[in-house]
Amino acid sequence: MIAERLVEDMTDAERERAARVESVLPVLRAMAEESDMRATFPASHVGLLRDAGLLGLVVPERFGGLGGTLRDLAAATYAMGTACPSTALAFFFHNTSASRGLLPLEAIEAGLFTEEEAPNVRAFAEKVLTRMAGGTWLANFASESVKSSTANITIATTARPVDGGWVLDGEKSFGCATGVADYYLTTAKLEGHETAEGLATFFVPRDAEGVSARDTWDGLGMRASANNGIRLNGVFIPAEEALTIPGAFTRMLTMSRGSFVGNQLAISAVYTGAAQSAYDHIIETLTRKTFADTGRPIASSPLHQQLIGEMTQQLETAYLWLRYQLLLETSEPPLKPKHEVFTQWRLGKGSVTEACFQVALIAFKAGGTSGAMMNGVVGRALRDLAMGLVMTFPAERGRLETAQIITEAKANELFTTAARSGE
Amino acid sequence: MIAERLVEDMTDAERERAARVESVLPVLRAMAEESDMRATFPASHVGLLRDAGLLGLVVPERFGGLGGTLRDLAAATYAMGTACPSTALAFFFHNTSASRGLLPLEAIEAGLFTEEEAPNVRAFAEKVLTRMAGGTWLANFASESVKSSTANITIATTARPVDGGWVLDGEKSFGCATGVADYYLTTAKLEGHETAEGLATFFVPRDAEGVSARDTWDGLGMRASANNGIRLNGVFIPAEEALTIPGAFTRMLTMSRGSFVGNQLAISAVYTGAAQSAYDHIIETLTRKTFADTGRPIASSPLHQQLIGEMTQQLETAYLWLRYQLLLETSEPPLKPKHEVFTQWRLGKGSVTEACFQVALIAFKAGGTSGAMMNGVVGRALRDLAMGLVMTFPAERGRLETAQIITEAKANELFTTAARSGE
Amino acid sequence: MIAERLVEDMTDAERERAARVESVLPVLRAMAEESDMRATFPASHVGLLRDAGLLGLVVPERFGGLGGTLRDLAAATYAMGTACPSTALAFFFHNTSASRGLLPLEAIEAGLFTEEEAPNVRAFAEKVLTRMAGGTWLANFASESVKSSTANITIATTARPVDGGWVLDGEKSFGCATGVADYYLTTAKLEGHETAEGLATFFVPRDAEGVSARDTWDGLGMRASANNGIRLNGVFIPAEEALTIPGAFTRMLTMSRGSFVGNQLAISAVYTGAAQSAYDHIIETLTRKTFADTGRPIASSPLHQQLIGEMTQQLETAYLWLRYQLLLETSEPPLKPKHEVFTQWRLGKGSVTEACFQVALIAFKAGGTSGAMMNGVVGRALRDLAMGLVMTFPAERGRLETAQIITEAKANELFTTAARSGE
Amino acid sequence: MIAERLVEDMTDAERERAARVESVLPVLRAMAEESDMRATFPASHVGLLRDAGLLGLVVPERFGGLGGTLRDLAAATYAMGTACPSTALAFFFHNTSASRGLLPLEAIEAGLFTEEEAPNVRAFAEKVLTRMAGGTWLANFASESVKSSTANITIATTARPVDGGWVLDGEKSFGCATGVADYYLTTAKLEGHETAEGLATFFVPRDAEGVSARDTWDGLGMRASANNGIRLNGVFIPAEEALTIPGAFTRMLTMSRGSFVGNQLAISAVYTGAAQSAYDHIIETLTRKTFADTGRPIASSPLHQQLIGEMTQQLETAYLWLRYQLLLETSEPPLKPKHEVFTQWRLGKGSVTEACFQVALIAFKAGGTSGAMMNGVVGRALRDLAMGLVMTFPAERGRLETAQIITEAKANELFTTAARSGE
Repeated sequence: MIAERLVEDMTDAERERAARVESVLPVLRAMAEESDMRATFPASHVGLLRDAGLLGLVVPERFGGLGGTLRDLAAATYAMGTACPSTALAFFFHNTSASRGLLPLEAIEAGLFTEEEAPNVRAFAEKVLTRMAGGTWLANFASESVKSSTANITIATTARPVDGGWVLDGEKSFGCATGVADYYLTTAKLEGHETAEGLATFFVPRDAEGVSARDTWDGLGMRASANNGIRLNGVFIPAEEALTIPGAFTRMLTMSRGSFVGNQLAISAVYTGAAQSAYDHIIETLTRKTFADTGRPIASSPLHQQLIGEMTQQLETAYLWLRYQLLLETSEPPLKPKHEVFTQWRLGKGSVTEACFQVALIAFKAGGTSGAMMNGVVGRALRDLAMGLVMTFPAERGRLETAQIITEAKANELFTTAARSGE
Repeated sequence: MIAERLVEDMTDAERERAARVESVLPVLRAMAEESDMRATFPASHVGLLRDAGLLGLVVPERFGGLGGTLRDLAAATYAMGTACPSTALAFFFHNTSASRGLLPLEAIEAGLFTEEEAPNVRAFAEKVLTRMAGGTWLANFASESVKSSTANITIATTARPVDGGWVLDGEKSFGCATGVADYYLTTAKLEGHETAEGLATFFVPRDAEGVSARDTWDGLGMRASANNGIRLNGVFIPAEEALTIPGAFTRMLTMSRGSFVGNQLAISAVYTGAAQSAYDHIIETLTRKTFADTGRPIASSPLHQQLIGEMTQQLETAYLWLRYQLLLETSEPPLKPKHEVFTQWRLGKGSVTEACFQVALIAFKAGGTSGAMMNGVVGRALRDLAMGLVMTFPAERGRLETAQIITEAKANELFTTAARSGE
Repeated sequence: MIAERLVEDMTDAERERAARVESVLPVLRAMAEESDMRATFPASHVGLLRDAGLLGLVVPERFGGLGGTLRDLAAATYAMGTACPSTALAFFFHNTSASRGLLPLEAIEAGLFTEEEAPNVRAFAEKVLTRMAGGTWLANFASESVKSSTANITIATTARPVDGGWVLDGEKSFGCATGVADYYLTTAKLEGHETAEGLATFFVPRDAEGVSARDTWDGLGMRASANNGIRLNGVFIPAEEALTIPGAFTRMLTMSRGSFVGNQLAISAVYTGAAQSAYDHIIETLTRKTFADTGRPIASSPLHQQLIGEMTQQLETAYLWLRYQLLLETSEPPLKPKHEVFTQWRLGKGSVTEACFQVALIAFKAGGTSGAMMNGVVGRALRDLAMGLVMTFPAERGRLETAQIITEAKANELFTTAARSGE
Repeated sequence: MIAERLVEDMTDAERERAARVESVLPVLRAMAEESDMRATFPASHVGLLRDAGLLGLVVPERFGGLGGTLRDLAAATYAMGTACPSTALAFFFHNTSASRGLLPLEAIEAGLFTEEEAPNVRAFAEKVLTRMAGGTWLANFASESVKSSTANITIATTARPVDGGWVLDGEKSFGCATGVADYYLTTAKLEGHETAEGLATFFVPRDAEGVSARDTWDGLGMRASANNGIRLNGVFIPAEEALTIPGAFTRMLTMSRGSFVGNQLAISAVYTGAAQSAYDHIIETLTRKTFADTGRPIASSPLHQQLIGEMTQQLETAYLWLRYQLLLETSEPPLKPKHEVFTQWRLGKGSVTEACFQVALIAFKAGGTSGAMMNGVVGRALRDLAMGLVMTFPAERGRLETAQIITEAKANELFTTAARSGE
């Protein structure tokens, strides 16, 4: 199975779920090029994935889902990434919505909510999970375009209390499945709050009044993920369609095993799948194509041998970082404390995506002038994988953040030691 | 003047010619994005450049041209590269046609043609030059798709002698200004010859019977250069529209100061112009855009400072290799013997284009998710500059060829020394 | 425990063995700098390691050893590498001698030896293991200086049969613990054989007649590993001190899980330990040292933050490749077939050692002029880790070999598919 | 002539001066290895260079010197760098002392000193120049070990006025020709001053009371440059042996064409010479040495071809940056304003030294295990060139400084434009 290239030690149950993913790949692959050219997420993919039961992939079985974990999600987005990275990305954002159900339930378990709060939180969480398991597509909208010097994401969308619910105003600059998802799971700031304590989550129906899709965003790659983003113009959301307890969001985040809500590595799995696909394609092309004079495969020339060696190393590098992060975020008991898992991802995200981009770039070079196309597997991979370089944060930022964490930790350690020995 | 960024020591005459180039840049720049999106070379550019006298830029004044040299050509393609790399590339291929006039004339001078051959050669050469000076666009078609393990280019197009002329059959896989140029200056192999001695040059009128444009080639970049290539299906060319003396081509090549017919560095100047443009654009963008919390330019963040520093170094690296090659190919007396100039270009070509691509890639990263567009200055530069990586030969091949030259030279030197001391 | 930085999932038994290693580190660390300056392996280390039981680290308990596996060996060489890379390397070569006992025993089990051969093979194998467990240091001498274009190692040392045994002649260009080990376990070619079938193994006592140490080899790094190599000048070895059955060597190799006799990754563990040590040292130094004007740690400057981020990424890269190779060579059941494990190591070896060298190089840069010393932790690490770049094979060769394996496999696959579909 | 590899357009006069340098190279080369091993600057080199007239290389003829310029200095340090980088570096620091004579004279000419100050300044300047021309070795001591977050160099050595002169106290952490030079030209801060205005220059006789050499500094490379540095403990210097006019130093600096006192690029020329030497050596070694089976040079293997190609590119990169900086700092009229020359050097310094180090590193790899020596041309080059990475400032710092200059210039430009259009 394709996904076993990434997750090498699948259980039988995981292999079964992966088989569902594998079953949809031919359609994804067949439609990938045209979807990219049209810059359109194929609406029929929603039904395809729903029918395969995949919308509930990471929803626990007790809520009607398939019971997969982050391992399944990464395996799925990786496998889809080999066929159609745009679909894989959109599918990822649907699945990460499950965190808004799973993390709150864990937080209740951990006693982070009062007895008064718990029922409300539980109701919302279960609504998220049962909807997903029931075949509802839940797009996940967080990103906004304002930049601050200290935070990776700043939220300016506001929620104002009104009778029976809330009114939302704002704009989400990025979000897959715009115009396709049944609901946009939207993060907004409660009126009167200025910190992360005020972040709340809302089910925004795709066709609610005041909701509009932004113009198609003419990205270099990942063009078929319908990532336009939305505008919210006085959108009313009933109270029971929201989780608005102050601090619910931040308390929920403490339960995550990795960065933010966790799962982020499954985005990198998309890119790794795309890199593997470009790699396979170019190796086959260069082996089939022969020199007119010697009849030997073009792959065997000194130039191409060098390129293939370097490309292979880059590809393996991507796998190593990705698999290790997956291990860190899923091993029981945890191999490392959360802050180390977090730090590792600061390096890992960039390491995976840079290595994947290098694979595509070398494949592009190896293909020569005649292969330097806008479309085709390699041309598309180059464009799709370029998106990985900028998504969330670039490798350079991750390294600077890591350095800061390490330096501060060391300074504290030395200070503590000095203070202790001074007693 | 923009071109002085590359050619820092222009003479007054050069500056005057550069001013003609500068005058067309606003139109090139204005039409660049749309031309790229439509993947079409704007037909109106032919008139624009003709009216500015630029079709005769490198034709000596005695044939009616502007009298420019390779310095002018590089300055021109560089400056155009900052505005519209596709146009710059097509313009380059028109200009390099002049080599089919200039080099034969030099070869006659150098006594490489017999008295019988000389008038014929001279007539053809002057025809090339006077046509260019007269405002005729001469596309230059050499590349074919067959690959051999030893040569960079293999010619399979054939010319068969018939009454009053020649009949051409074959296919040219790459060539700018397809469907736009007045003539395609076409290299073909004379029937009965198997070596480079049999290469001949033909004026193929755009609309001659049997000439057809290949399908639009859906390249990742340089999309507005009309580089489809052509098919020649029994195309008749009168004898006087051809240079078919066996060995004329190879004798002409010996007069070149650089690789092949020379001039190749002016292609790299196109890419350098494009890189400069992406650089300027992103520096301005990142300086204008500010952080919401501090009001400081985004350019001032540690991440962006690192990226800007690295990008600047890459850009300067491109200039250094390019300027030095230009010096080598134009200095009088020659600074170095031809084989060293040739070897330097094996390294230089890849060094310039890799550095330029890195500029675009870093600019792309620095622009973040919101700047990761298919179009716009940076997105287009990334795609255009990726073409530079594969065009002619990739950097890795250039390095391997250099190594071979150096190793063989050293082995010969050691062998000679050993042989001499053994006498 | 230091070794857990590499082997993160130690068993209790492994932890116990690792504690023995940990116990010798202070002495190794204390003597490292002086040993390096004197370019001498401290003779007292033999007793130190013997007393800690470590000479039998990877010998099964039934032969009197500690019962460790490759996991223990890597953990040990890594931990020692943080203290004294030279000692770690010499210790590695002693331990890899165990392969000459373990692999033959496995080969007997697998039926690779006839009933007649088996007792002889078993006797030799058990002699290797019991000697090691008994506290004998067995240096391992394979490398020679002749280079062939196809093989990584060529053996020119010969063994000629004489009454009661063999006479050895030749020179071993590299081998740790020269003049220190009790025996040199030496590979030689039986007279009359030209292929690997003729390779045989001999116990050469350190002080046997005809054995002499070559001059000290003035290496850039790993200077305290006593790697002079030896000369064998008509050295008589009794028959029972040799394994001379033709093909024994190659049959034994088929049992290895990795490259050659396996274990090679434990050399890379030495380098990774050295890199970790340089990393820890420079981070602490840069955090302790402060700017005179601001009082902030030098580590916090933008320059140092960039360097620390990059250094950390390199260090993690080394761990990822190393840990994965260790997993591949020790997992039960095997995760991948032997040829894939072998191929992975072609990439892995270079990836680990290049990354480790980069750690030392960045640490060196970060230390500034005042830290640019011949000695000290960073200066020594830079020199020691440079040796990793050339040892066995450089990263570039590993990548070229990988490319060849991949290309040939693909060509075979396509050929087979074509042949099958042609039936 | 060796130096023409760097300065390709020498005049006859320059060639004559270069011939003097060329004449001393055999001795430098012969003594290089032993000098490095002993970590001692050969005292006899002073006489060798003096007798060749080279101590006055860059002193104008009217003061008895050879009349060379920065072109001669770079040519000289480059050529010496191919033979003995340590000597070349020490020679550089002697020559850069001339700036303390030349720049003040230019500053007087430019009217930067009052009529009262001028005679004093002129007297000191002429003393510097005539002493050098007369065969006196003037070491140049600026560096100190204190680090500030904003300046590259901080001066803590103080000069206190006493009857008839000054008393100096402090420590210089780095300075070539310690214990060898006739005078240490020393920068100190006048008592009562806190800014650069208070910097003054003193002739400190090598054997003056209170002057002592620091311990030998055990550097990784450049070990024979006698760079211990000195301690000044109440050293009395007569008034006429000093230039103590407040602001003289900073006024003098304004006359420099490049960074600081100019000349810095001649240090990079040392490294470039060393890189060329390692390059030549390894190419010859790999061409002489052959594979035992095929008899072909080792240089011809795919691995070595790749390494040679990459090494050649790095070497050429070093030359390009260095030659261009030399052009910028010597062209008449100046090609670019001083601040651009300065900025270019921020990139250039690191670009040259990183490229040179890569040459040595690749040569080291290409040499294999048997060539991985502490000494020999390549081993020494690796160590010497590592010093280039940290000397003055590392490449990363240069890039960050460049980014800052560019960003601030752009911000000012945009601000000015905005302000103007707002009028």
